[in-house]
Amino acid sequence: MAQCAGFCYGVKRAVETTKKIKAENPSKKVWILGELIHNSHVIKELENLGIITVDELPENETGICIVRSHGMAPQKIKEISDKGFEVVDLTCLDVKKVQQKAIQLAQEDFLVLILGKPEHPEVVAIKANAELYSNKVYVIPNIETLENFRNEIKSYKRVGVVIQTTQKPELLQSVVNYLLPIASELKVFNTICKSTTMRQQEAKELAKTSDLMIVVGSKQSANTTHLAEILKNITNTIHIETAQDLVQFEDDIKNVSNIGITAGASTPDNIIKEVIEKINKI
Amino acid sequence: MAQCAGFCYGVKRAVETTKKIKAENPSKKVWILGELIHNSHVIKELENLGIITVDELPENETGICIVRSHGMAPQKIKEISDKGFEVVDLTCLDVKKVQQKAIQLAQEDFLVLILGKPEHPEVVAIKANAELYSNKVYVIPNIETLENFRNEIKSYKRVGVVIQTTQKPELLQSVVNYLLPIASELKVFNTICKSTTMRQQEAKELAKTSDLMIVVGSKQSANTTHLAEILKNITNTIHIETAQDLVQFEDDIKNVSNIGITAGASTPDNIIKEVIEKINKI
Repeated sequence: MAQCAGFCYGVKRAVETTKKIKAENPSKKVWILGELIHNSHVIKELENLGIITVDELPENETGICIVRSHGMAPQKIKEISDKGFEVVDLTCLDVKKVQQKAIQLAQEDFLVLILGKPEHPEVVAIKANAELYSNKVYVIPNIETLENFRNEIKSYKRVGVVIQTTQKPELLQSVVNYLLPIASELKVFNTICKSTTMRQQEAKELAKTSDLMIVVGSKQSANTTHLAEILKNITNTIHIETAQDLVQFEDDIKNVSNIGITAGASTPDNIIKEVIEKINKI
Repeated sequence: MAQCAGFCYGVKRAVETTKKIKAENPSKKVWILGELIHNSHVIKELENLGIITVDELPENETGICIVRSHGMAPQKIKEISDKGFEVVDLTCLDVKKVQQKAIQLAQEDFLVLILGKPEHPEVVAIKANAELYSNKVYVIPNIETLENFRNEIKSYKRVGVVIQTTQKPELLQSVVNYLLPIASELKVFNTICKSTTMRQQEAKELAKTSDLMIVVGSKQSANTTHLAEILKNITNTIHIETAQDLVQFEDDIKNVSNIGITAGASTPDNIIKEVIEKINKI
């Protein structure tokens, strides 16, 4: 099993602090806007503790509202606070740094490119932060999208880049290679977080000596999905959410001698443990 | 023949202004420290006009001293001026811009990487300018050299890059790809000049439809040599200095139907003309 598998420090901090807040404030309602982390088991566990996950805060309610590790648009935080909720900001410190770098680029009059998926909550919040200072902020999920901004980049000349913390380094590399000949000034913050980099590197090494790699974690989780995509290029790879999903892969598991296991940043330890037990049984 | 072949505006300006200065100051001695451009025919032509090319200015002399298009270390310019010479600065405006960007990076506390050959006079002058503001200025001719600074880059984190105006874009690309995973902040000025970029792009297009490419210009000239190196990857390519060099390639010329011609930034028009006439004769 990869040593870097499972919860990163940002996720651990968010989950533990949320539980602690509820424990210390039993009489108050604790709300989370959007899933705290992309894992339905953790969401259910929090629900059992009385911590409520919602898409929109209901009217005529009060209590504590958690800003999850992905961060949140500053306008949204103000709105929640104005409604009378007590805001606790658990934005991952690495994500906070991306927001700050995007703001810096916007303030320094760079055209700001945020590499990542436009719908990812982390990206939405980074964009909202930079847009407080500039209207030249674009989200770039792939090279094809960048093509739409080619002329604008050429005429703007000063181009700044940040990347969502759990993105793949290949995206950063391909975008920078595209920009080099057309941008006369290029400022790049490699904001892929250390946890993601280490997790990917370690998993790649493990994959080289494994007949089969098993990636454990939600299919909604960006970093887990990227992990599976990367490993597929090295060896036979299966992406599962829980031990139960292993049923359909029993033959694959029986037919190999080395199995490597890793898990995304939002996968709890007990789910990884169950997977290992199930594999041993098979 | 490639439209961008031959003198670029910086070289044209340096040669024409030098001649004009001598014409307007017939009684004064006009000196050039180092070859005005890397072409021995032009140097000889200037000599015939009484413009003297030297490696070091002699003692007990006066007159006008030309700073050539490659630029010069500021300390050196001051030294010449202190000796009593009248200094005329003909540094190419594109080269001036690289010097300014390198200074900016040094002032902003970036570790400064200058991509190019350490002995190239343009690189020497860029380095000297940046070193007025920082002692973290390194010249990087290739990826292998960069390896020596790996740990320093990792610990310094903020890395700035400029590139000698006539370098190959491939060098910039490979260095940036090397830096992306290890530098958390990367500021890149793509200072390859427009003239070089256009010349290379046009020559590459021409090479695709040519059985043979002939590159005309001094073997001492960096931009001419790079041009030949790039074209060799596309089609059969010959690098010659003058029409006389064609003698040994008569068979190559007779055996093809399409010949493309280009020339470096320091190759005068009359030398290109002679080459075309000689090819027609063959």
